[in-house]
Amino acid sequence: MKKVSLNESNQYDDKSFKRFLLHDSPYFRVLNFNLKAGQVFPVHSHPAEGQLTIQVVAGSGEFLGADATSMPAESGDILVSEISEPHGVKATTDMRILVTIAPPF
Amino acid sequence: MKKVSLNESNQYDDKSFKRFLLHDSPYFRVLNFNLKAGQVFPVHSHPAEGQLTIQVVAGSGEFLGADATSMPAESGDILVSEISEPHGVKATTDMRILVTIAPPF
Repeated sequence: MKKVSLNESNQYDDKSFKRFLLHDSPYFRVLNFNLKAGQVFPVHSHPAEGQLTIQVVAGSGEFLGADATSMPAESGDILVSEISEPHGVKATTDMRILVTIAPPF
Repeated sequence: MKKVSLNESNQYDDKSFKRFLLHDSPYFRVLNFNLKAGQVFPVHSHPAEGQLTIQVVAGSGEFLGADATSMPAESGDILVSEISEPHGVKATTDMRILVTIAPPF
């Protein structure tokens, strides 16, 4: 049993989004990304089996998908995606997201 | 790709904590529990392989463990536990938690 906290990784960078690894195990990987307003986590995918969630912890923006599609991403929203499916995030305001990947690849 | 939202399950019950299943797949299960101040998610465990996170989304309380141990649980805190390890939550204020279990058992 261990405790990690989003309160210890509340940092942004003007040059690019910040990435914090909060937990990694054979079962899942948990990451926090902090994006300044306007920053983009580019659409990407990996040829691996599994799923991930992208939870908006603070701020707002858009969830990005294949073919330039997007969905509003507000605090409290959680995107569920296959790891193999294109996914990304664009920050409208300063924005914090929590990503859980299972299983890690 | 689908979107679920914590903003649609922001409901409490005076009698017992509320439970909302947000996502279930072979890879992970995501649940939101809302506890009124004073309510307890009793310490329990399951004889299954895997891990879970308990993320405090709003409010505060305590993470509970084996042998009456506890740790402060503030908004932004994330407990990581084996599924087979005793874990629970006690709400000091009204409290919302997001639980991710991988793999589901």
